[in-house]
Amino acid sequence: MSQRKIILDCDPGHDDAIAIILAAARPELEILGITTVSGNAEIEKTTDNALKICDLVSLHDVIVSKGASEPIVRLRENAPGIHGESGLDGPELPEPSRSWSDEHGVDTIIRLVKESKEPVTLVPTGPLTNIGLALTKAPEIKDNIEEIVLMGGGTIGNWTPSAEFNIWADPEAAKKVFDSGLPIAVMGLDITHQALATKDVIHQVNQIDNKVAKIVGELLVFFASTYKEMFDFDGAPVHDVLAVAYLVAPELFKMKAVNIAVETKGEFTAGTTLVDLHGVTGRKINAKFGMELDVEGFWQLMIEALKKY
Amino acid sequence: MSQRKIILDCDPGHDDAIAIILAAARPELEILGITTVSGNAEIEKTTDNALKICDLVSLHDVIVSKGASEPIVRLRENAPGIHGESGLDGPELPEPSRSWSDEHGVDTIIRLVKESKEPVTLVPTGPLTNIGLALTKAPEIKDNIEEIVLMGGGTIGNWTPSAEFNIWADPEAAKKVFDSGLPIAVMGLDITHQALATKDVIHQVNQIDNKVAKIVGELLVFFASTYKEMFDFDGAPVHDVLAVAYLVAPELFKMKAVNIAVETKGEFTAGTTLVDLHGVTGRKINAKFGMELDVEGFWQLMIEALKKY
Amino acid sequence: MSQRKIILDCDPGHDDAIAIILAAARPELEILGITTVSGNAEIEKTTDNALKICDLVSLHDVIVSKGASEPIVRLRENAPGIHGESGLDGPELPEPSRSWSDEHGVDTIIRLVKESKEPVTLVPTGPLTNIGLALTKAPEIKDNIEEIVLMGGGTIGNWTPSAEFNIWADPEAAKKVFDSGLPIAVMGLDITHQALATKDVIHQVNQIDNKVAKIVGELLVFFASTYKEMFDFDGAPVHDVLAVAYLVAPELFKMKAVNIAVETKGEFTAGTTLVDLHGVTGRKINAKFGMELDVEGFWQLMIEALKKY
Amino acid sequence: MSQRKIILDCDPGHDDAIAIILAAARPELEILGITTVSGNAEIEKTTDNALKICDLVSLHDVIVSKGASEPIVRLRENAPGIHGESGLDGPELPEPSRSWSDEHGVDTIIRLVKESKEPVTLVPTGPLTNIGLALTKAPEIKDNIEEIVLMGGGTIGNWTPSAEFNIWADPEAAKKVFDSGLPIAVMGLDITHQALATKDVIHQVNQIDNKVAKIVGELLVFFASTYKEMFDFDGAPVHDVLAVAYLVAPELFKMKAVNIAVETKGEFTAGTTLVDLHGVTGRKINAKFGMELDVEGFWQLMIEALKKY
Repeated sequence: MSQRKIILDCDPGHDDAIAIILAAARPELEILGITTVSGNAEIEKTTDNALKICDLVSLHDVIVSKGASEPIVRLRENAPGIHGESGLDGPELPEPSRSWSDEHGVDTIIRLVKESKEPVTLVPTGPLTNIGLALTKAPEIKDNIEEIVLMGGGTIGNWTPSAEFNIWADPEAAKKVFDSGLPIAVMGLDITHQALATKDVIHQVNQIDNKVAKIVGELLVFFASTYKEMFDFDGAPVHDVLAVAYLVAPELFKMKAVNIAVETKGEFTAGTTLVDLHGVTGRKINAKFGMELDVEGFWQLMIEALKKY
Repeated sequence: MSQRKIILDCDPGHDDAIAIILAAARPELEILGITTVSGNAEIEKTTDNALKICDLVSLHDVIVSKGASEPIVRLRENAPGIHGESGLDGPELPEPSRSWSDEHGVDTIIRLVKESKEPVTLVPTGPLTNIGLALTKAPEIKDNIEEIVLMGGGTIGNWTPSAEFNIWADPEAAKKVFDSGLPIAVMGLDITHQALATKDVIHQVNQIDNKVAKIVGELLVFFASTYKEMFDFDGAPVHDVLAVAYLVAPELFKMKAVNIAVETKGEFTAGTTLVDLHGVTGRKINAKFGMELDVEGFWQLMIEALKKY
Repeated sequence: MSQRKIILDCDPGHDDAIAIILAAARPELEILGITTVSGNAEIEKTTDNALKICDLVSLHDVIVSKGASEPIVRLRENAPGIHGESGLDGPELPEPSRSWSDEHGVDTIIRLVKESKEPVTLVPTGPLTNIGLALTKAPEIKDNIEEIVLMGGGTIGNWTPSAEFNIWADPEAAKKVFDSGLPIAVMGLDITHQALATKDVIHQVNQIDNKVAKIVGELLVFFASTYKEMFDFDGAPVHDVLAVAYLVAPELFKMKAVNIAVETKGEFTAGTTLVDLHGVTGRKINAKFGMELDVEGFWQLMIEALKKY
Repeated sequence: MSQRKIILDCDPGHDDAIAIILAAARPELEILGITTVSGNAEIEKTTDNALKICDLVSLHDVIVSKGASEPIVRLRENAPGIHGESGLDGPELPEPSRSWSDEHGVDTIIRLVKESKEPVTLVPTGPLTNIGLALTKAPEIKDNIEEIVLMGGGTIGNWTPSAEFNIWADPEAAKKVFDSGLPIAVMGLDITHQALATKDVIHQVNQIDNKVAKIVGELLVFFASTYKEMFDFDGAPVHDVLAVAYLVAPELFKMKAVNIAVETKGEFTAGTTLVDLHGVTGRKINAKFGMELDVEGFWQLMIEALKKY
């Protein structure tokens, strides 16, 4: 079976963690490496969290490299109000069994892409700092990147009225990615808000009798509680998981080819993604944008993946 | 009966025209004056259109003053793709029976507000140029303004991916208004897109046997055709009408108190309204924002108004 | 003798005051009106100051109209650190013998330009709010404006590292003026900093035995003291006076035809004038920019004017 | 003798080349490495040019690493109009005797700083891309950086009316550097325009009878010709050389402690450095800014250095 080569670039983060768990469960995907970035929490925390999840799902041979600890230009900001102090509050997870690689995350991305015989798909689910730096440091890797499937942006915002956290946290990096000319698929808030881990979903997860499902259940409960408090949502949207789900079951996603521009200036709008749904800007199409999710199909995919553990 | 004193500041425009028609039909409102602005069409056209509608609904004694022919800072842009070359394509309307006032629209606003014994409500349904100029030229009028009930902005865009036409056309004027400290009620695209003049609505309008209803029917048919073409909507949203409807039937509107900031900078985002629905910015509440419309009640109001002619 | 028709639009201000004094002394100029603006001090103060100077030089028949009390979009800021609390600290001047006109300054500009049989030259020496508003409210006046000769901007700044006060105080108005297509002559800091009222100059002024010269001497002494304190200058640059001097003795000025753009965005640079001295931008020439002053000739002109009182 | 450890980060470029030549001649400096960046010419050219100059002055053991080929966010632009197609037009220089290192320039900077027992001084004379990337990728290197002595910015511009080429070419990288909290000394256009290689200077150089001086003479002749053409200068300003000269003879430089902010937004002003000479912004001092050069002393230093070859 031909496997799609992917690099998970993430900032776990509850939904990043579940995205890793889904990816690890799916035979269609070969995880070449996991790189981390400052985002939901500080870099040491997101990297430790990635390592803990690797332990949980036995990804012992996948390199985990620590990437950028701060955005390219702006000041670092994290999201403890959403993900707790650890970045992964909720379940008790043992300390990681290994440390992160000596290689910087940006260099891991560059090396893995260059070494791969087949084109690689990047799956960023945090701020795009590492990807932006990799593209600046080694623009030649574009030749061996199949696609960038990312979680970020949307026609609405969460961190500001118009900007989603991942893009807002490093708009310059995001601009680099969206202006790169590479094929991009975007899971923005429009579609990720459809993937709510409701009580019913959590109930289904909790019915599964294995360690991984138990942890996922606990992650969802914590995540739902902060989303309730901050945004009055009935269930947490598992944003990042959609990027991985799209790789294995694109038929669950209604996508639209659009232009997406990233605002890096503005008094109030830095990090806003301009998603040109109606083609009013005349700008060239540069992305596929997630419009509609087969919600039932999505959760079924997730539940099945958890059952395999 | 105590009447609410209003000034309609508009750029007819199909929906502006219907807004005037609704206002003229309602006894709760006293129209002190109508001022026009460049927007949906050039200033001469929007002013002529206002005069034609005044003739149609016998508003012979209401002053109609021509206001700003261009935005405060930016270059003028109009919207013939939506409203046709005349700004009011569709029905055949006779030439106006009178000319516009010699007084500039901005001065009419200032004078009427100053002269009124009771506080005045401004109802801008076009770009906010006149209001911005009036507030700059005579900031003392703030003392006698009850509220500004405007159509503009939203959490989504139409003229650009993130900006609505009225705000986009003169962001500096809009910033002046939103930063004025005055009470503001905002009918943005979020709520105006709920007020679609569907085929069923048009059918109801056409059932009414009078001249005004016939014209409104023709306006809606033309408006629906351009909205179908440009945005693939099933029916035209009668944006501006909501501002007037809100004055006479606020119970049809679910509003939310929020902060709204206007972006005047940005590479892609000028004219974007940042509607802080979840209170994430910490900025002070300065507006009531239209969230949800009682659609049926709204159209009933409109139909009844038309029947009175 | 054919006189050049001018409107002085000012915010006295020490140098504005001296500019009026110079203009009133010169037979080549017919002052159609004086309009005031918030700038060096609040609008009531600058208007009173203008009236006081009119009394001093017997300009009893020239209309003095109060203009804008705040910028078009931004928050008002004045410069008491430079001009004192009154805007004209230093000499004791009697209260004005008359009040300002009932007509708003913006309307005075529009009316005077429209009424004049010959084209009018506008001479703004404060923030460009009134001119910007007049051009927006009545763009047709462009047809009867000969030139705008203004004090503002430069390749260096004073109020910020890159922006001069007049332009910084209302960048949107300045943009309107510079983008108007009208002929513009600009006295920026590059040339106004050459016109320092040194001790020697003040000595010459004080030698003149009349009331007006005495007041000018006192104005210069106060102005020099704040410039010493804030910018460590040996003598105050009489910025605004150059705009009037240029009208009567252009041969004293080496000007360069350039493009000047006004920054209204930027994190740090709003109000910066981009003076394209070397033609590197490719933008169209829209202004004559003051490069070099015949300093001796300039002061001689001033001294002679003062002697006439 | 204790040597100051430096890394030359450059984009030769005529003045970069002469800066390397000066540095190589001075015993006070230990060149740990040379890294290159896209700027005056494309990265392959600037790197080859650096290698050629290393051959010329026998810097055979100094690592030369190719750095960033494009800015962090913006599109790449080079300056063939100033430096010719090769980036070093004028003299005939043999092809380099060796190739650049396999290590990326950014990694060379990071490694050399980390490995050095004494704090390292970075001497960037091109766009600040490499330094910005190094600070983002490995912020911990700040602990072993003594100072950044750079050529860039100023109160005037050359590439735009307000921006100098190096800062303009990568404003985001420049912002990173100026906001880093590190000690920075800045050779901006204000001081580098004082260091004109006039005919007299070129004559002195040509009097020196060695290979290196001959090449420098040819570089200066070419450089002067493009400066004459583009900016009508009588002699080329050898901008980058001042950064090296400052390291060995700081007594030739009158510096001022100021705040410098970098504009990254703006419609016209990206890359502008706001040099707060008069302390008007209230922002914290973060740089020493070159005000005045002992021109004679500077050229004497240069001539003596050339004589040593």
